[in-house]
Amino acid sequence: MPNNRRFLLTRRPNGAPVADDFQLETTLTPELANGQFLIRNHYASLDPAMRGWMDDAPSYMPPILLGSPVRASTVGVVVESKANAFPVGQWVSGLNAIEEYSVGIAGEFSQPIDVNLVPSSTNFLSVLGAVGMTAYFGHVEVCKPAPGDVVLVTGAAGAVGSLVGQIAKIKGAAKVIGIAGGPEKCARLVDRYGFDAAIDYRGKSVDQLSFSIAQEAPNGVNIIFENVGGDILDAGLNNLAMGARVGLCGLISEYNNAGEKTGARNLWQLIVKRASITGLLVADYVPRFGEGISEMAGWLQSGKLVFDEHIDHGIENALPAFLRLFSGSNDGKMILGLAP
Amino acid sequence: MPNNRRFLLTRRPNGAPVADDFQLETTLTPELANGQFLIRNHYASLDPAMRGWMDDAPSYMPPILLGSPVRASTVGVVVESKANAFPVGQWVSGLNAIEEYSVGIAGEFSQPIDVNLVPSSTNFLSVLGAVGMTAYFGHVEVCKPAPGDVVLVTGAAGAVGSLVGQIAKIKGAAKVIGIAGGPEKCARLVDRYGFDAAIDYRGKSVDQLSFSIAQEAPNGVNIIFENVGGDILDAGLNNLAMGARVGLCGLISEYNNAGEKTGARNLWQLIVKRASITGLLVADYVPRFGEGISEMAGWLQSGKLVFDEHIDHGIENALPAFLRLFSGSNDGKMILGLAP
Repeated sequence: MPNNRRFLLTRRPNGAPVADDFQLETTLTPELANGQFLIRNHYASLDPAMRGWMDDAPSYMPPILLGSPVRASTVGVVVESKANAFPVGQWVSGLNAIEEYSVGIAGEFSQPIDVNLVPSSTNFLSVLGAVGMTAYFGHVEVCKPAPGDVVLVTGAAGAVGSLVGQIAKIKGAAKVIGIAGGPEKCARLVDRYGFDAAIDYRGKSVDQLSFSIAQEAPNGVNIIFENVGGDILDAGLNNLAMGARVGLCGLISEYNNAGEKTGARNLWQLIVKRASITGLLVADYVPRFGEGISEMAGWLQSGKLVFDEHIDHGIENALPAFLRLFSGSNDGKMILGLAP
Repeated sequence: MPNNRRFLLTRRPNGAPVADDFQLETTLTPELANGQFLIRNHYASLDPAMRGWMDDAPSYMPPILLGSPVRASTVGVVVESKANAFPVGQWVSGLNAIEEYSVGIAGEFSQPIDVNLVPSSTNFLSVLGAVGMTAYFGHVEVCKPAPGDVVLVTGAAGAVGSLVGQIAKIKGAAKVIGIAGGPEKCARLVDRYGFDAAIDYRGKSVDQLSFSIAQEAPNGVNIIFENVGGDILDAGLNNLAMGARVGLCGLISEYNNAGEKTGARNLWQLIVKRASITGLLVADYVPRFGEGISEMAGWLQSGKLVFDEHIDHGIENALPAFLRLFSGSNDGKMILGLAP
């Protein structure tokens, strides 16, 4: 049985996670029971939502137990098996943890994947994984786009946001505006992802950001795909068109905030514009992933969709790699390589 | 031409309105043009939304111009007319101002009313007016009630809230919980308006209020009819059932807040519970008022619906009467009597 290095949560972070909140444990992989299989994880997905799972707070999943490895989606290959449907050599993706080996259970969170369909198995953690499905179902089902809509995407250079902007264009948006941090990311929104306009939020007050959005969308925005919250959501709310839909995917600006949160101060605009904010979670669409993967894969093959992955290697780099999500120093979907 | 006393806005309030923000002017009523008619206002409706109209901020209506009388819905009787559809003696309701006489224009905001249908003409400013229609269409169309729902109403002792609780019961709610300020109001919710439970928000932190709601709704609330915002909305968001709908009718806790607003800090719960907040404005339902009035009048006649009006008299009392809305010292729909 091989050694297994695992990235454990040993203390609940207060604000931004620090090294002392975690421990790297080396242990043996366990004996398999019937129906189980051992996965050699090659890659783990690093996502903002994982920060929420580290808190002891009510959410859509139980908190990560202290002393357990940090929960994450992974892709890997089956190296031992007592489950017929998951033979040795089968590639799988599933909700596991940041560890070199995970025990999968047939009928639970792992599914076989065909890595020959894509250039890299990591794509099952990005464009064809939860990130891609979040962008697809979040935009199509929650934001309910209509041709001619003006669409605002926040956190637009992120893994989900960059896909949402492209899906919005495919779905007939008249204009897609992205908000991101810094001139490089803003340039990438337009040059690489085909956004019609990009706004750099850095150094801007809510009023200044509101003004910048209004310049790009003088009649307001019909859709906001919201990944950020805080000041950026407040500026978006100031620019709603009548009947606008805000799809609430994430609130990354708030996750590491240990003190009193600021909150959304412009909800009044929901009344003024008879608009709505609706929370979205990709887990609701798991039964329809086949439909989403098929649509997204078609757009990929026809060159309508581009995406980027930012891969840091080594389980010992788990924390700095995760923290890139909050500093914004990643260029694409953040992934941690776990294979040698 | 009679003297006309008018309650003018002469300075924009900073936070809570004060006497120096207004002037009581006495002037002559104007000469009527063709198509116009002079209304002797008997009653003016005092509503929280009027506070927003006093600010110079973008909203669903233009701000009240400085030097103009404060905009308000009124009921009154036509005393002079150059409009065939509005003969002398006809009772009308419409969007006018806090003034003893208003000039109506045929085809604009005034409509004839039949005061013989109801015990008091003031009912056209309460249960059969914008307040009643807000409760009816806000609950039925925006909150989309289903039989068996658990419904939370904030500002429940207010004019809109007390009606919403009763409409929710009529529409088959399993349980209706009201939040109000003080033991007298809480008792009134249960004893007079038929709420199943009442929670006094006074002296409670967000956590304490969240706990009180959870005790009454251990499986969460399917609907929040939100009139208050701030801490009370945050506590409600902590108690959403999966797929809950929040109808956002008002944010009275924020209207007189001159400084930095706190905002809603628990929007994360919208993601956890795939819930939505939708702004509602009764103006959208004006074409369907006939339907709402008919339904509400039927419930009134069959004794299913009770309501209260709090009438202060005299235009010189306009400001203290208006401020009752924010101190909560009114018992029912706040109305200002303008006739001798």
